[in-house]
Amino acid sequence: MIPPAVILVRPQLGVNIGAVARAMMNFGLTDLRLVRPRDGWPNADAGPAASGADAILDNARVYDSIADACADLHLVFATAMLMRPLTRRVVTPERATEELRAVNLPGGLLFGPERTGLETADLAIPHAVCTIPTNPDFGSLNLAQAVVVFAYEWMRQTGDMPADDMKFYPGPAPMQELENLIATIDETLTANRYYSPAPGRPEAAKLTLRNLLTRPQFTEAEVRTLRGVVRILAKPRGQQDYGRALSAEDSAKAADKA
Amino acid sequence: MIPPAVILVRPQLGVNIGAVARAMMNFGLTDLRLVRPRDGWPNADAGPAASGADAILDNARVYDSIADACADLHLVFATAMLMRPLTRRVVTPERATEELRAVNLPGGLLFGPERTGLETADLAIPHAVCTIPTNPDFGSLNLAQAVVVFAYEWMRQTGDMPADDMKFYPGPAPMQELENLIATIDETLTANRYYSPAPGRPEAAKLTLRNLLTRPQFTEAEVRTLRGVVRILAKPRGQQDYGRALSAEDSAKAADKA
Repeated sequence: MIPPAVILVRPQLGVNIGAVARAMMNFGLTDLRLVRPRDGWPNADAGPAASGADAILDNARVYDSIADACADLHLVFATAMLMRPLTRRVVTPERATEELRAVNLPGGLLFGPERTGLETADLAIPHAVCTIPTNPDFGSLNLAQAVVVFAYEWMRQTGDMPADDMKFYPGPAPMQELENLIATIDETLTANRYYSPAPGRPEAAKLTLRNLLTRPQFTEAEVRTLRGVVRILAKPRGQQDYGRALSAEDSAKAADKA
Repeated sequence: MIPPAVILVRPQLGVNIGAVARAMMNFGLTDLRLVRPRDGWPNADAGPAASGADAILDNARVYDSIADACADLHLVFATAMLMRPLTRRVVTPERATEELRAVNLPGGLLFGPERTGLETADLAIPHAVCTIPTNPDFGSLNLAQAVVVFAYEWMRQTGDMPADDMKFYPGPAPMQELENLIATIDETLTANRYYSPAPGRPEAAKLTLRNLLTRPQFTEAEVRTLRGVVRILAKPRGQQDYGRALSAEDSAKAADKA
């Protein structure tokens, strides 16, 4: 899958070009093209804003026209809001990215100058317009942030990050450990007169507790931690012992303090 | 659908807080919360960077702790890369947004300080970690750009922008207009000996031409434009007349030039 080129048309500020380079590198885009950058190229303001994405800036190519910058590309979208009556297809960044992936040929995304965006005449050069969905009352995006949207879309659609992943998870504890925890809790609560004597109420409370304890799929370490917590709370006040590993000396100190 | 709060934890730079406000307003988020901003609050650098999103800054609330900032929220994700071995669910921005939408209760997104991101202890406070998929070799996102990703995701999932929309499109021309154009082209090409006499070749060429002319669903105005183009090219050189509306005087001039 070939990531699309990012083509900045008449960009005004070097800091924005640098921020664009950083955003591209964050999301795996590499091909930066500049059409008549206002302050020439290279631009001393771009490097610091790129925060390490210098390779993108070093490899950036400069062109005299949009057509030149797109010459080798097969599918190009102009990112803009279509204001003038031009019969033109307007797609979301999601759809544009899907189409770039589907054709699987070198493609590109045009971004206009900071102040004005692309002109209507610019919009007729590529194949379609792509509009980022925004707040209708506050739709003007920073240039680099517009690039972030597309770069993120590319990564979202091409990346292999699992949508939902339990990290550092050795898996749930053996069921017996969980049963032991539930039994310990149950004994402790019974001894502390937690359960109401009203008909059905103990059963309902026990169901709620069992359910909330099994649903998180606690690990063995977590179940042991919980069992230690319940055990210490179950002891008469003053006889807690900071857990099983406590020395006799520490136990004596704890008893003194209590 | 309640948009999630954006909670900046110990943010360092006012310009970033301002850029975050702008990104939030661009995509319809409104609730900005600050946990112990390094340089206090308000911060004079934030306003200019917000580029008009002052309402977000004016309504921002300051908290002493992550827990305080999240007190009224029901589902909170910490945006971070999980580096330390903590048994924790890690989801994509897409999934986190889906879950926030599904619970349909006030939720929030935590973002850490620019230099370090959230600390491991911070990650255990909300319900899960959310990691933006990035280039593994260059994953450090600018704070505002990280917010853009989530704000855009929110708009992408809640917005009603059609994925693919033909704008300013009166619809395809009547079929007869298209047939007339194809006939005009065919006559002109025949007269200019375009079609090869080899068996089957004229039919193949005609099929290609018909197919490429019907597929774009040209409007009536576009079909007429194309027909005018073909007609003028069909005329003997020097007898072109700039189309039908040309005056006799202009025709004479054109003939003089040719």
